[in-house]
Amino acid sequence: MAKIDLNCDLGESFGRYKLGLDEDVLPYITSANIACGFHAGDPEVMAQTVTLATKDHVALGAHPGLHDLEGFGRRRMQISALAAKADVQYQVGALQAFTPDGKLHHVKPHGALYNMAAANHELARAICEGIYAVDPTLILVGLANSELISAAQEIGLPYAQEVFADRQYEPDGSLVSRTKPNAVITDEDVAVKRVIQMVEEHQIKAVDGSILTINPDTVCVHGDGIKAVAFVKKIHSALDQEGIEVKSM
Amino acid sequence: MAKIDLNCDLGESFGRYKLGLDEDVLPYITSANIACGFHAGDPEVMAQTVTLATKDHVALGAHPGLHDLEGFGRRRMQISALAAKADVQYQVGALQAFTPDGKLHHVKPHGALYNMAAANHELARAICEGIYAVDPTLILVGLANSELISAAQEIGLPYAQEVFADRQYEPDGSLVSRTKPNAVITDEDVAVKRVIQMVEEHQIKAVDGSILTINPDTVCVHGDGIKAVAFVKKIHSALDQEGIEVKSM
Amino acid sequence: MAKIDLNCDLGESFGRYKLGLDEDVLPYITSANIACGFHAGDPEVMAQTVTLATKDHVALGAHPGLHDLEGFGRRRMQISALAAKADVQYQVGALQAFTPDGKLHHVKPHGALYNMAAANHELARAICEGIYAVDPTLILVGLANSELISAAQEIGLPYAQEVFADRQYEPDGSLVSRTKPNAVITDEDVAVKRVIQMVEEHQIKAVDGSILTINPDTVCVHGDGIKAVAFVKKIHSALDQEGIEVKSM
Amino acid sequence: MAKIDLNCDLGESFGRYKLGLDEDVLPYITSANIACGFHAGDPEVMAQTVTLATKDHVALGAHPGLHDLEGFGRRRMQISALAAKADVQYQVGALQAFTPDGKLHHVKPHGALYNMAAANHELARAICEGIYAVDPTLILVGLANSELISAAQEIGLPYAQEVFADRQYEPDGSLVSRTKPNAVITDEDVAVKRVIQMVEEHQIKAVDGSILTINPDTVCVHGDGIKAVAFVKKIHSALDQEGIEVKSM
Repeated sequence: MAKIDLNCDLGESFGRYKLGLDEDVLPYITSANIACGFHAGDPEVMAQTVTLATKDHVALGAHPGLHDLEGFGRRRMQISALAAKADVQYQVGALQAFTPDGKLHHVKPHGALYNMAAANHELARAICEGIYAVDPTLILVGLANSELISAAQEIGLPYAQEVFADRQYEPDGSLVSRTKPNAVITDEDVAVKRVIQMVEEHQIKAVDGSILTINPDTVCVHGDGIKAVAFVKKIHSALDQEGIEVKSM
Repeated sequence: MAKIDLNCDLGESFGRYKLGLDEDVLPYITSANIACGFHAGDPEVMAQTVTLATKDHVALGAHPGLHDLEGFGRRRMQISALAAKADVQYQVGALQAFTPDGKLHHVKPHGALYNMAAANHELARAICEGIYAVDPTLILVGLANSELISAAQEIGLPYAQEVFADRQYEPDGSLVSRTKPNAVITDEDVAVKRVIQMVEEHQIKAVDGSILTINPDTVCVHGDGIKAVAFVKKIHSALDQEGIEVKSM
Repeated sequence: MAKIDLNCDLGESFGRYKLGLDEDVLPYITSANIACGFHAGDPEVMAQTVTLATKDHVALGAHPGLHDLEGFGRRRMQISALAAKADVQYQVGALQAFTPDGKLHHVKPHGALYNMAAANHELARAICEGIYAVDPTLILVGLANSELISAAQEIGLPYAQEVFADRQYEPDGSLVSRTKPNAVITDEDVAVKRVIQMVEEHQIKAVDGSILTINPDTVCVHGDGIKAVAFVKKIHSALDQEGIEVKSM
Repeated sequence: MAKIDLNCDLGESFGRYKLGLDEDVLPYITSANIACGFHAGDPEVMAQTVTLATKDHVALGAHPGLHDLEGFGRRRMQISALAAKADVQYQVGALQAFTPDGKLHHVKPHGALYNMAAANHELARAICEGIYAVDPTLILVGLANSELISAAQEIGLPYAQEVFADRQYEPDGSLVSRTKPNAVITDEDVAVKRVIQMVEEHQIKAVDGSILTINPDTVCVHGDGIKAVAFVKKIHSALDQEGIEVKSM
């Protein structure tokens, strides 16, 4: 039976600032990527989010980002490989401290760190080494077919290939940049069909019509608004109907 | 044979800013309290400091502080018990991630967090609970006879009673505030003699002449200047000559 | 004809985090206290908020706070008088840079800085000196009858006495702490009546029944929710009906 | 009579962290670029540095940088033009608040912000617009012949062309990257001769031997070490002997 994981970024509130409908989206996802205080989240929010996600039996993951709260970790920063490794170690360790048994399930880099590493092998490798140093059984979640996956393979770190329901792909497997007009798929039915096709057929049409081979372990979904949560329910239900098991990696 | 530990705050550099003669003091101490990025230190400095201290076989401890880099964690902040617990968990977990085996030896709160908790049982307990949640075998280092010690006893967390060579004590066992003229003992020979007396006789004269019972496990020393490092060598050598073993807690 | 100002804290968003219904409350207030990046706000938010408030002809003021974004400037910190003065200068100058003519109208300290200074003359004076150093014509907004007002008088800084519609007063003129059960007045009609009484009769009943003399220049209102904005409309309308002019200080 | 300005970055200490021999270098320079709290400096340090520089009759300038204390503003960040403009306005305003008369003399972007803007017209223009918005008489200090200079010309902002004594130039007028082996000129006599040649002959040999036309208004010097300060004395004295007046822009 085919299966797939649904992962979502959680715990993005900070101090008095609230962000995300964490409690609403938790029942429909199988993996939580929890912010670790660099681009979002704070220690109290991390404690609360771990408690919430544990209650819903969702797999706990760290979501380390660049140290740029004002830019929400979305602004590219030229950090060294040493800094990237240390920043990831720090954040993964910090989140681990809030888990019931001192164990996390996976690590997914956030925002600009994820996007830069998908195309930069040295950075990807530094991130994977940071994760490996904390716990070599942690699963790296990275863009399918990207440098993050090849770096994890290289050092023997478990990995999960991530796909996006609502994003177009370039012929090289990278995401079409959000600065381009056709980057996002707005038709939800098309988005759902693409996910099912990727899971069952292991291929997807790129933006130029060429066919990419893709082997998804997890689909990125969002919980930062009512519409986003409705889409998560929709995709979960469509996967159920198709006979695809929604299950953590 | 009587024994005592010498502990020192390390890893207080940040980015381009250098602080402390870590390499010079490491050969003479037995426990390192490593800053965790809130009041001092950054992920790269933490990585380097763990490597240095491990090479010198010094016991690795976390030195969590208030989130106030500008004030070096020395300005009192009215944080809630929940925030204190979460801040400690976060920082201890972050440092743990840099250790060779994912294990630390002890935790010593820093600066204003230490001083506030020494006199505030609720805060002391929150800190101890944060440490316990990460690893119940970690040793809390706290001011001898203070609320930190009683909170650790209360929840079953191992603890070490800390004394100060160069500070005067109030009759209640608290340190004479640095704002008072006689707070600091500047005569190094007197300071050394007081440490030996505390270790061997388990008592010390308070500033008013009354005698305090004290049972020291560790002495706080400093590595933030040439003179400080010289004093560490001096006290180490005096303890050796007295037949007191200098050994980690 | 009696007159009063209505002041409100604005520009409290930060990066991706949104806070406050600034556009909704602006038409009903006469003075804006704009966050300056220490406890809330960031440079882009400051630029936008100045533009918004200027469009609505609302008097522009700085709202400097403690450097504690995570605590929203509400956690007391033991900062020195020198630090308080410099922090205020810095924040007032930063906001001034966004105004069309390089001029602000007033400065109201935020949160814990406001509350600490209301009862601490040295701190109040340091804040007033910081404001005076930037521009001696700026109006300090402070708790009526508090140390902030006396410090402003002492150094010759213009000031405005602030009152609270929904808060009870202690017999000494301080606000009843929010940790006490009767701190907040929840009946809106009572709150409105108390404001009118303070404006017209220059007196108000303290929580113990004693009568305080009070001479309000401005009333603190809130824009951080639909209910809060509705109350601002209500109090504005009640003041109009009473023949009290709502006008900036 | 030919003349030139010597500018130096000052006020780079932060909290307990000390950096730079500000007092030693001040007698030999004519313009101070004072850090504004984003990449270095804090409000108390800014107050002290303005006082020091004013005492020495050195022209006061702002040195705004990226908001990255850990990276000392040296790590490139992909910030938007709006963010760059607002960040510059904020920092220039903040420093202005500490000056005796509310007036600064110049603004020199720091580190990665300077280097990115030298080659990126949109970013350079955003920075110049931020400066212009605060005070259109402020002098922008930028790399000679770079986009910073052309952006200042475009919007009518006064500018000063900066040259470097100890750095090699590419044939397009940019600095040879520090990652290349021949980036830095280590022979002090050569460095001094190159400055004199640039001031008197308005030309300099690029790294490939081609001749660049250059019209320097100011030379960048450093005060972050005993050797650096000695070089400032040396270049000052050489300029005196050559009959070139060392004078602020």
